[in-house]
Amino acid sequence: MDKRRLETCFSPALFEPVMYKDSIVVIIDVLRASSAICTAFANGAAEIIPVTGVDEAKVYKSRGYLVAAERDGFVLDFADFGNSPFNFTREKVSGKTIVYSTTNGTGIINLTLSCYLTVIGSFLNIGALEQWLIEQKRDVLLLCAGWKNRFNIEDTVCAGAIAETLLNSNYYSTICDSTFAAIDLWSLARPDLSGYIEKAAQRSRLRDKNLDDCLEFCLTPDFTNKIPVLKNGILVAHF
Amino acid sequence: MDKRRLETCFSPALFEPVMYKDSIVVIIDVLRASSAICTAFANGAAEIIPVTGVDEAKVYKSRGYLVAAERDGFVLDFADFGNSPFNFTREKVSGKTIVYSTTNGTGIINLTLSCYLTVIGSFLNIGALEQWLIEQKRDVLLLCAGWKNRFNIEDTVCAGAIAETLLNSNYYSTICDSTFAAIDLWSLARPDLSGYIEKAAQRSRLRDKNLDDCLEFCLTPDFTNKIPVLKNGILVAHF
Repeated sequence: MDKRRLETCFSPALFEPVMYKDSIVVIIDVLRASSAICTAFANGAAEIIPVTGVDEAKVYKSRGYLVAAERDGFVLDFADFGNSPFNFTREKVSGKTIVYSTTNGTGIINLTLSCYLTVIGSFLNIGALEQWLIEQKRDVLLLCAGWKNRFNIEDTVCAGAIAETLLNSNYYSTICDSTFAAIDLWSLARPDLSGYIEKAAQRSRLRDKNLDDCLEFCLTPDFTNKIPVLKNGILVAHF
Repeated sequence: MDKRRLETCFSPALFEPVMYKDSIVVIIDVLRASSAICTAFANGAAEIIPVTGVDEAKVYKSRGYLVAAERDGFVLDFADFGNSPFNFTREKVSGKTIVYSTTNGTGIINLTLSCYLTVIGSFLNIGALEQWLIEQKRDVLLLCAGWKNRFNIEDTVCAGAIAETLLNSNYYSTICDSTFAAIDLWSLARPDLSGYIEKAAQRSRLRDKNLDDCLEFCLTPDFTNKIPVLKNGILVAHF
């Protein structure tokens, strides 16, 4: 059996879309965009429209949309809320279309438009995502959002956890150094994930801004079985 | 005491020169450019002129220079030899000026021209380099050459080894996730470095081309105490 190709990319700045036209791309931004998106769908959101620019988000707001928008962790003044997963409660989002713009995550989604399919991964939906990926019979790229194009620990260990499961399924193989490294870092992180993430720079940044209340939650595996999938530029839930 | 800043960059594509105007940048390309350059100086080379383009290397050759040039591991036809460290023997290089062009390594040197100082690091000169860095009282960036802008294992674990020593010296601190990850990967690699490197993609590439004879040598710590330093665009040995 020809195995499917598994690769990991540590930064949007290293991402070469042309290589992944036939691949499923999993965007991982654990703190906090991926986790917030998974939480929104877990709580019944109908769809999420990712937008890159602040002005674009403002236009949607003026048209009556529910808008989640932040820059560097802080809620933009015109927005309904920011990107803490705790904002995306069932009361607020059930059945709603949400317009979403973050420092990092939403811009990355647009980089992947030429790929076969874009999905959102986090610890919150990790088990369902792994199972679904194995069923798709497609090459997979795990695309870590990082922070301002830099490598980060939390996205990498999440990628490592997914990669380990896919390789263990025997449907995937890899010759990608980033994937090997991610799996090794996951093996170190796994026994005490929140302790390991403690050294991550983004952990400090969130704590400095008192935005770290959602950290433990973002590291919770299998909170939901929803898989956010990009269809015609809009995220919808697969399950 | 204000500690000096230590950072690690996993790919030239992630390198932001403007951030490191006052830093010493250590270029690490274990397989094989950094190792070859360190070997050349260990064997008495007078200076190494790094050039990016093949045509530029050809011009130097026509002027009578000794030229080491390769692309994807293979010696270019006009060159005297390629970039296996074993080519840079005392007989060939002692007292000589060498013009050097490789797939990866020499282009990266040119990216660092605006930084305070550029030096070449490898396992071959690791102990002397660490000691020298500690004495410089400067911020340090460990710049992994990677492979065609991708993350690679062998440069990362070498960076991790250097980073661990610098942090242990208490003169350095870091909040850089790449540095933490590199140190953790080094901790996994250290007990059996060549076994660990076995999974690296570049290891396979070299083996496929029968270019892997120098691998064990490239992982040898402290073969030399020479530190190649870039001065006016030309590499010379510090010790």
